[in-house]
Amino acid sequence: MAGTSTPALAAAVSNAGGLGSIGVAAMKAEAARKSIHETRALTRKPFNVNVFCHAPAKLDTARDAAWLAYLAPEFARFDATPPTALSEIYTSFVADDAMFAMLVEERPAVVSFHFGLPQQEKIDALHDAGITLLASATNLAEARAVEAAGVDAIVAQGYEAGGHRGRFEDLGDRVPTDDEQLGTLALVRLIVTHTSVPVIAAGGIMDGAGIAAVLALGAQAAQLGTAFVACPESAADAAYRERLTGANPPRTALIRAISGRPARGFVNRLYALEQTADRPDLPAYPVTYDAGKAINAAAKAKGNSDYAAQWAGQAAPLARAMPAAELVGVLRAELHETLDALRDLATTF
Amino acid sequence: MAGTSTPALAAAVSNAGGLGSIGVAAMKAEAARKSIHETRALTRKPFNVNVFCHAPAKLDTARDAAWLAYLAPEFARFDATPPTALSEIYTSFVADDAMFAMLVEERPAVVSFHFGLPQQEKIDALHDAGITLLASATNLAEARAVEAAGVDAIVAQGYEAGGHRGRFEDLGDRVPTDDEQLGTLALVRLIVTHTSVPVIAAGGIMDGAGIAAVLALGAQAAQLGTAFVACPESAADAAYRERLTGANPPRTALIRAISGRPARGFVNRLYALEQTADRPDLPAYPVTYDAGKAINAAAKAKGNSDYAAQWAGQAAPLARAMPAAELVGVLRAELHETLDALRDLATTF
Repeated sequence: MAGTSTPALAAAVSNAGGLGSIGVAAMKAEAARKSIHETRALTRKPFNVNVFCHAPAKLDTARDAAWLAYLAPEFARFDATPPTALSEIYTSFVADDAMFAMLVEERPAVVSFHFGLPQQEKIDALHDAGITLLASATNLAEARAVEAAGVDAIVAQGYEAGGHRGRFEDLGDRVPTDDEQLGTLALVRLIVTHTSVPVIAAGGIMDGAGIAAVLALGAQAAQLGTAFVACPESAADAAYRERLTGANPPRTALIRAISGRPARGFVNRLYALEQTADRPDLPAYPVTYDAGKAINAAAKAKGNSDYAAQWAGQAAPLARAMPAAELVGVLRAELHETLDALRDLATTF
Repeated sequence: MAGTSTPALAAAVSNAGGLGSIGVAAMKAEAARKSIHETRALTRKPFNVNVFCHAPAKLDTARDAAWLAYLAPEFARFDATPPTALSEIYTSFVADDAMFAMLVEERPAVVSFHFGLPQQEKIDALHDAGITLLASATNLAEARAVEAAGVDAIVAQGYEAGGHRGRFEDLGDRVPTDDEQLGTLALVRLIVTHTSVPVIAAGGIMDGAGIAAVLALGAQAAQLGTAFVACPESAADAAYRERLTGANPPRTALIRAISGRPARGFVNRLYALEQTADRPDLPAYPVTYDAGKAINAAAKAKGNSDYAAQWAGQAAPLARAMPAAELVGVLRAELHETLDALRDLATTF
C-alpha cells in the first residue's frame, strides 16, 4: 500500500491489536526514516515496513518515447503535453544501500519484501538487527525460495489481492500467460502443505469470515489491504474512496499500463489503452509509472480520475469506511462470530 | 466432470454421505437415462445430474476449416489426417427437449446447470417434478440471475476450479479480459453477502481444511471435482492419473483450444497452439471439441497424451488416489480436525 498507507493508519491498526504496515517502497531512505519516526510517535506497538525487491529497471529510451507518443492524445485531452523523458522513479531495495542501512539502524519490528528477495547478506543483517522478516509469494516455487532464504513468514498473495502482484520474475510485456494466477484458497493450502514456515494469507479477505477461512486453511494470520483503504486514516483521495464504497464498484483487473507491472485495481482508462492490439511495448517497471503518474496528474488537475491508480482486490465491494481501530474491532468480533458458528456446525454432521 | 464421472463414482460418494454427481452433458437423453439407472442400481441415496446450458453453437464452416488446417501438422505427427468437417458434438440442454423430458420422467433428486440457465418453464417443470436445482455462477451478476430464476442453490465456481468455466456469456474468441476471474474466496464471500440463496463453493477445495474454509465464508457446502478424479471409480485414464498424483504435476491454465470454451486443465500441446499470435479463430463451443477429441485420439493411438483434456483445478497437487468412499471419510475426519483446531484457536485471542 505504498502511497495509500500512512503512519496514522499503521499506528491505529497496531494500537488496536493488529500489525500495521507502512509502505516505503516509493520513498528514499530519509523519507522512509521519517515515516518510521512518525509511526513510532503514534504507537509503541510493533509495525511492519514494506519494501520492493524487483529487478532494477533496464532503461530503453526508444521504448519510453514510443509509449509517451502513444499517450500524447490522452495528455492532449487535458491541454497537457507528455513529459519529454521517463525515469526510474524509485529504487529497488536490492539496489538501495541507504534504505538498507537505515533499516538496520532503525530496527523496525518487522520488514516485508515484495517482488522477490534481497541479497542473502541483507536478509542476514536485518535478522541480526532483530527484525522479523516477511516476503510475499504467489506460487509454490516462490514460497520455497522464501523458506530457503530463512525469512520468518511467507505472505501468500492470492490472485484476488489488490495492488501489485508480488511475482518474483517479471517476464516482460508480452508474456501474460506465465502467471499461475493462483487464487488465495488454493495458494494458501498449497503453501501450508508444502512448506514449514508460517503463512500469512492475503487476497480477497475483507471481514472476519475471510480471516476465519484462511485460518482454516492453515494460515497463521491474514493480511488485509483493500479493507483498510476506505479508513479515514489512509491517503486515498475522494474519488478512490467513492469507487470503493459506492453502490456499484467497478470491476478489478490486473493492470500493467499504470506502473509497468501487473497490479490489481479498478479498471480505468489506462487499462483500456493497454488492451488495444496495436499499443507499443510498455516501458520497464517502474518507468511506466512515471508516465502513469504524469497523465493522472494532468487529468486530476481537470477533475478527471479516469487514469488514477486505485488498487483494489476482487472483494472490494465488501469495503467499509470506518476508522481503522474500529475496523480492527469489527474484524475481531466477526472472526469470533464465525468461529462460534463453525463450532455449532461441527456438532451437526 | 462429464467424461470423468461414472455411476460407480457418484454412487460411492452418495453412499459415503456426500452428494455424488454424474455429468451427462455430452450424452444423448437415452444414454443419460441409462447412466441414471446405473447409478440408482448402486445407491439408494440422492445424487446430482449435471447438464450444460450454453448457447447452441453457430456453425461456420470456413472458420472450422481454418482451424482444421492449422491442426493438420499436428495430425501429421501421428500419421493421421484431420476430419473433413466438424460438428456440434453434443446438444445444449436449452435445445434438448428429449433430455428435459427424460429428467422430468426420471426425477433424479438433484439437477445442476452449468454455463447458464435453461428456459424458465423448464426450471419450473423440473421443480414441479420434485427435483432440487443447482446452477453455477462465476460472478455476482450470474448469481443474481440464478437467484431470480428460483433455483435452489448457487454453485459459486471460483477461478481455481478445474474444468469448464461456467460463465453464462461466451463473448467470443478474442475477448479474454472480460472474465472477472474471481477467486473462490472472494467469489463465495461476495455471493453469500449479496444473495439469500444457499451457496455451494467450488474451486481449489481438495481436503477438509478447504471445506472448513468455505463453510467459514458462509457456504452451505463444498463441491469437489479434481479431488475425486484420481479415485479408482473415475473414468480418468492412466496418463491423467499419473499427472494428477505424480511428483511434479504440470501447472494448470484456462485452455480454450480443446473445446472452444475456457476450461482449466493441465497445460498441454493444444494450449501452446492456442497461445501463438497467428492462430486462426477457434470454432464455436463445442465444435472445437470435435477437433480436440480427434487430435487426441490420433495422438493417443500412438501412445501420446499431449493433447488430452486433463481438467484439473489449481490445487491439483493436493490430489489423492484412494477409493471414493474412503476419500469422503478422510474429508469428513479432516473437516472435524480443522474445526476442532479453530475452536482451540478461538480461545487464544
